[in-house]
Amino acid sequence: MTDSDAQPLPATAIPPETGAVCVLGLGLIGGSLLRVLADTTSVFGWNRSMTTVDAARADGYDASADLPETLRRAAAIDAVIVFATPVTTLPALVAAVAEHAPRNLLTDVVSVKEAVTRIVAAGHPAARFVGGHPMAGTSHSGWAATDADLFRGAMWMVSTGDGTDPADWLRVAAIALAAGATVVPAADDAHDRAVAAISHLPHLMAAATAAVGAGESGLALRLAAGSFRDGTRVAGTAPALQRAMLEANDAALLNVLSEAIDRLTNIRDDLRDRGSVEILVDDGHRARLAYEAMSSRPPVPITGVTVGSPGWQQELRRQAHTGRVWVG
Amino acid sequence: MTDSDAQPLPATAIPPETGAVCVLGLGLIGGSLLRVLADTTSVFGWNRSMTTVDAARADGYDASADLPETLRRAAAIDAVIVFATPVTTLPALVAAVAEHAPRNLLTDVVSVKEAVTRIVAAGHPAARFVGGHPMAGTSHSGWAATDADLFRGAMWMVSTGDGTDPADWLRVAAIALAAGATVVPAADDAHDRAVAAISHLPHLMAAATAAVGAGESGLALRLAAGSFRDGTRVAGTAPALQRAMLEANDAALLNVLSEAIDRLTNIRDDLRDRGSVEILVDDGHRARLAYEAMSSRPPVPITGVTVGSPGWQQELRRQAHTGRVWVG
Repeated sequence: MTDSDAQPLPATAIPPETGAVCVLGLGLIGGSLLRVLADTTSVFGWNRSMTTVDAARADGYDASADLPETLRRAAAIDAVIVFATPVTTLPALVAAVAEHAPRNLLTDVVSVKEAVTRIVAAGHPAARFVGGHPMAGTSHSGWAATDADLFRGAMWMVSTGDGTDPADWLRVAAIALAAGATVVPAADDAHDRAVAAISHLPHLMAAATAAVGAGESGLALRLAAGSFRDGTRVAGTAPALQRAMLEANDAALLNVLSEAIDRLTNIRDDLRDRGSVEILVDDGHRARLAYEAMSSRPPVPITGVTVGSPGWQQELRRQAHTGRVWVG
Repeated sequence: MTDSDAQPLPATAIPPETGAVCVLGLGLIGGSLLRVLADTTSVFGWNRSMTTVDAARADGYDASADLPETLRRAAAIDAVIVFATPVTTLPALVAAVAEHAPRNLLTDVVSVKEAVTRIVAAGHPAARFVGGHPMAGTSHSGWAATDADLFRGAMWMVSTGDGTDPADWLRVAAIALAAGATVVPAADDAHDRAVAAISHLPHLMAAATAAVGAGESGLALRLAAGSFRDGTRVAGTAPALQRAMLEANDAALLNVLSEAIDRLTNIRDDLRDRGSVEILVDDGHRARLAYEAMSSRPPVPITGVTVGSPGWQQELRRQAHTGRVWVG
């Protein structure tokens, strides 16, 4: 299929309304989701801290610090429940959902998909769960950092497994679209490998670059210019947040980290033996140009797939694997 | 000495005028220097390509493609000669200077100082040479990219060896100040180790990150957000420019590259054996905060040194090693 084959989607593929939404956790991601959905959707939130709940209420949002009551309310109106708390807090939340809202559709906005899927399956085996991951964030956190525009133009991965229910998938995708994001369908393991490469590895490379630079002298940091500033920026993220993200994706991160070490070791040998950094500099330049070419053009939409038709999940994944996106 | 010891510099330390300046090479760095000095100084330039010379003349600058004539003119008026061409072209230029302007003061704006010093000493053993390195640049090149504001606020390293002549040093420092930059005194080897850590290593880390990310799939590049974008930016620089810069600093680069590989290998072992990235993330975070603290404040001036007094070179280097700068 080439790009010129693009066809209007059949009417049955038009995404449904999101329906009511219940957001668990009102930090940067969950709080921003509460803000942006409130314009078009019946949405309410829960947060453990009454301080955060008071701040959200003061800004005019529907929020509570009572988890059982919030979940019973979600059960009564069939709201989609969105997990928006750090992965370490999920087991307790999943247990509460299994008790108070066992039949609700669940999704999440937490980084790593295989770990979250395992936690949900362990605590609530009968759950209707379709994971998600918006590629958005800042180095700030908490309700004060929330922003209704946080997801505008961002990519939002929606879990697309062979057993994913089409109606559930469309409802989760509708939340991403309502937030202003673009939907990227992917299998959990493919997503986790991808973010290991394009997000978690960059954190470790930034940390190593920063640590080597700062180990030199005040002279080195004084001479530091753009390449050091940009190359170490994400090392400034709060260590606890970085660790939670990276350590939850250990298997995929180990693979890409080993590949990076191999590439650096090979070029060290070339530099020592032949005085050359040609191979890595050329590979990196080609890779950067490929990224710039992709990110400078509007994404090509996935075409020719009706969500719910036989093999729809595989076809969405196949097209997304080439960089296409689902636009509803 | 503490910051509160700052004293006005004695009158003898006020930098002299730059005198006349002759710039060899009118690419991004040399051309920008011609532009900014032309407001206050008698400055003229040479470039190998007549196209570049015509472009500079069309913009109102004094330029020539005749090297012997340009150098004889520099000799006649005792202009400081500035090497502003890639390191690979320097031997031929140095030979021409030794023939046509053997007694002129020489400086350069090329990245690596030990390599340049070796080339000058080999081709012109009697040269009066005080090297320099402005920490400024863009990913563009050539006369069309030149900008009189390129050096404004940038750090400009000026070689400060035990045998450096004070009058020559002050005249080279005056060029950096006239260009709008801030002077950082350093020994050649300390400078080369510093830029290996804060400029050359970041290029290799960016290349490895880009190559690993692009090796994944279109899905990975589609999901790439800020950490990948910023962490791979300098991999987009022209490969020939990156290679010339990095390979001329091979010894220092090998050291910091090995340290980066060690840090990444140690954290891979920790991640595999204990599921932890704590050590590297914490070290990187501390290092980034140290860099942000230094770059967010105006630099502290070097104080209490009269250029030319006994041991002035060592004292300038000692204070610069802690991050201080020379402001004239």
